[in-house]
Amino acid sequence: MSEMIEGFGQEAFKLAFRKHAAGVAIITGRNADGSATGLTASSLASLSAEPPRATFNIAQTSSSWSAVNHTGNYLAIHFLAEHSVDLAKRFAFRPAERFEGDHWHEGPQQLPILHGASAVLITQVSALMLQGPNAVVVVDILSGEISPDEAPPLLYHQRNFHSLGDLEDVD
Amino acid sequence: MSEMIEGFGQEAFKLAFRKHAAGVAIITGRNADGSATGLTASSLASLSAEPPRATFNIAQTSSSWSAVNHTGNYLAIHFLAEHSVDLAKRFAFRPAERFEGDHWHEGPQQLPILHGASAVLITQVSALMLQGPNAVVVVDILSGEISPDEAPPLLYHQRNFHSLGDLEDVD
Repeated sequence: MSEMIEGFGQEAFKLAFRKHAAGVAIITGRNADGSATGLTASSLASLSAEPPRATFNIAQTSSSWSAVNHTGNYLAIHFLAEHSVDLAKRFAFRPAERFEGDHWHEGPQQLPILHGASAVLITQVSALMLQGPNAVVVVDILSGEISPDEAPPLLYHQRNFHSLGDLEDVD
Repeated sequence: MSEMIEGFGQEAFKLAFRKHAAGVAIITGRNADGSATGLTASSLASLSAEPPRATFNIAQTSSSWSAVNHTGNYLAIHFLAEHSVDLAKRFAFRPAERFEGDHWHEGPQQLPILHGASAVLITQVSALMLQGPNAVVVVDILSGEISPDEAPPLLYHQRNFHSLGDLEDVD
């Protein structure tokens, strides 16, 4: 282990979070002008099973912020399997192409529903906590679709997408 | 994709989140009575690089809740590499043994610092959002240690620990 880093700055923050890994979700909604919008998120986490709630974090500078920034707004959360890596890259790196093509349809509340997700949750923003330039978003899960397939989840680590691997028994 | 599940209950919630995967962190602190405490968390997420902030979710019934439930409280966040799977299991499944042994030392603010983590963040609770029986915790990152090793991260999926795998190019 290296020395303690005091005055933890942006560079240290990035180095530290490169040690972390996360599942990948795409969150879609409708911006204030009605246009379809979406973002790739690695911060999606369960909050409680009863009531069914989840959280994610977003920058207020995000192009999807106006779809998120009011309680009551509807959002669709898609958990991605590894076969959806191209969809993840499209949403993360090619914003103009997010809704170009037939890889989605309009679902409940006009939400863009992406095809091939391992689960889709129809949610409604129930609380927002603004934190400087960012926000923590709490959503209530209203309904959902869960794929019967056992496709492994897509993961994000070190600025790249990955699959799941088996752990050799270290006990 | 299966049919839409209306009236999303606990069972549906669990089925959906079994599709998700997450990196594994251990968060340690000091309970109100001064005793060392800690929990395994799969909800750790970055919030902002500037100021350096992260979030995690916790049940108010957690044995670590009194270490977390005041702004200003200090917490140590450990990102785990796959070689730390036994530490993750100890904290998740064998609470009485969490601090039995020489796998930790006392660090800044009397925080229990676990050995072998890929990164350790010394943090302070800056905001709490109570949500029913659970809570969203925001921490400011004050300092940290980052291992120079490139050990792969430990992952949690389908109630088991996993390693990272390579993704075959699907483009």
